[in-house]
Amino acid sequence: MNQTGLGVSKPTLLIALGGNAMIRKGQQGTISEQFENLRVPISQIAALVDEYNIIISHGNGPQVGNLMLQQESCNAVPKLPLEILVAQTQGQIGYMIESVLDEMLMEQGTGFHPLVSLITYVVVDRNDPAFVRPTKPIGPCFTAIEAKNLTYPTMQTPKGFRRVVASPNPVTIIEKREIKRLINAGFLVICCGGGGIPVVRNGRAFNGVDAVIDKDLASSLLAVEVGAELLVIVTDVEGVLSDFGTPKEKVIQRLSVKDARDFLRHDQTGKGSMEPKVEAAVRFLEHGGKRAVITGLDTITSGVNETAGTQITDAEINM
Amino acid sequence: MNQTGLGVSKPTLLIALGGNAMIRKGQQGTISEQFENLRVPISQIAALVDEYNIIISHGNGPQVGNLMLQQESCNAVPKLPLEILVAQTQGQIGYMIESVLDEMLMEQGTGFHPLVSLITYVVVDRNDPAFVRPTKPIGPCFTAIEAKNLTYPTMQTPKGFRRVVASPNPVTIIEKREIKRLINAGFLVICCGGGGIPVVRNGRAFNGVDAVIDKDLASSLLAVEVGAELLVIVTDVEGVLSDFGTPKEKVIQRLSVKDARDFLRHDQTGKGSMEPKVEAAVRFLEHGGKRAVITGLDTITSGVNETAGTQITDAEINM
Repeated sequence: MNQTGLGVSKPTLLIALGGNAMIRKGQQGTISEQFENLRVPISQIAALVDEYNIIISHGNGPQVGNLMLQQESCNAVPKLPLEILVAQTQGQIGYMIESVLDEMLMEQGTGFHPLVSLITYVVVDRNDPAFVRPTKPIGPCFTAIEAKNLTYPTMQTPKGFRRVVASPNPVTIIEKREIKRLINAGFLVICCGGGGIPVVRNGRAFNGVDAVIDKDLASSLLAVEVGAELLVIVTDVEGVLSDFGTPKEKVIQRLSVKDARDFLRHDQTGKGSMEPKVEAAVRFLEHGGKRAVITGLDTITSGVNETAGTQITDAEINM
Repeated sequence: MNQTGLGVSKPTLLIALGGNAMIRKGQQGTISEQFENLRVPISQIAALVDEYNIIISHGNGPQVGNLMLQQESCNAVPKLPLEILVAQTQGQIGYMIESVLDEMLMEQGTGFHPLVSLITYVVVDRNDPAFVRPTKPIGPCFTAIEAKNLTYPTMQTPKGFRRVVASPNPVTIIEKREIKRLINAGFLVICCGGGGIPVVRNGRAFNGVDAVIDKDLASSLLAVEVGAELLVIVTDVEGVLSDFGTPKEKVIQRLSVKDARDFLRHDQTGKGSMEPKVEAAVRFLEHGGKRAVITGLDTITSGVNETAGTQITDAEINM
């Protein structure tokens, strides 16, 4: 199936793009802004296709929030459950990434690279403790009075009351076998958008659930399940920062798994949104991954080439 | 890549599901109704997987209309162009079809069938006359006064004023090479939802356009481009009807390409929504297809086995 025969021999890279790859801080998030923003990460990814098999996953926070707002504003049509909104964002963002990547590959002129965007759903455990105590605020903000009339649980956040859903641990990616076959056959694969469509097993069926799976943890699991060598987590800072918020603040260039675990264990300023990324990197390395990189939107290529970002490896074993 | 080695030798079937596969007349279209309705066509498709390579395409009329209504109701977030809404419905419906099919295949217990839902975009010609005189009403109904304040053209329909967009001819399916490789490797492929995301060429890029591609014409083109043997168009009647609306009304069991062309040429009662389906069948047969079937939701298997629906073949050549 892979006419060049190169598919199997190249190392496999899973690149997880954060929501800021499409909507930057301070932007409204029009479609032309989103397409324009995508050119920064996608042009760097296009430059890697000859050396690596590539899987791209992505976040969907702002897009799914917008769909929720539109739903709340309209009583004329049946409301859709959260898992369907996640599926819709996979369609939207999958198309956007694919079409920008298609264009960049044609500009590069390196020949035909088969490229697909896949719908992906991800199994979670209905007994996951996250369902008992949901912690993930999503979607629009409401006043206390508005929140009382909503049909779902809310939590108070600094910006107002927001819907709160469970963020359960991903158990397995349903399409893992398909994705592995595609990679072996030389396909570029865009998948696992928004952490995947969350489902629970119900006999032989899978039922969607109101939950949001962390995109970095789902990407880490997918990287393990398809045997990727390298996990690249792309975010809006250059890497994991030490001395966060002080004049000494700087990017940590290398972390061992042990250091990364210490980072997760200790109460550390600025850990915030970095925590699931470091956790995702650690899980990947503990399950056979060779190297994880946390890097910025404009330093994907240099992050892969070990000249930017935070490189996380199992240094104890490598020494 | 195809471990069973059967992929190449089986004939390829493209099954185009109409919107009524998910939302029946008189239903509100809740997600549980949509999932339940899908079981009728999907259980029959599951029964065909050992004999045929299968591609499934689908309509999106009601779903894209609902997304448009939700957008109109909400001024808090940027409006999305039509091609993005089509992409969103590909995510939604692709997920729904895939998960129901997954369940049915597991119930059948016939082993692992690789199965993917792909985002698909379809090139149209920016000089297509359809852009000069848009004819396709879509989305919600407005009063004459509301219609005056809309930013896009509308047309008067029996139900009120509706947005009108171009329905250009599909020129080529961008993912055709990928889909052909997948079929050859034994994958079941869900794709080309809603007639595909409409784009025009702009140098090396593709730009989305405000248009809706007829789902049956796009499916016919895809069937030709991947070399499918059989095109099955699934709708809410049993087949093409003769003597429509009279006591003698009955399903036409066989049509030659010549008969089908006559059907398209003559002003015929009840042609209505059947016209693009017959046109799609004729185009398929004129470009190398072996047989097209227009059949009902609950007669897919018997339509494939030539015991139901309207069978269209190039009888002049076959005689």
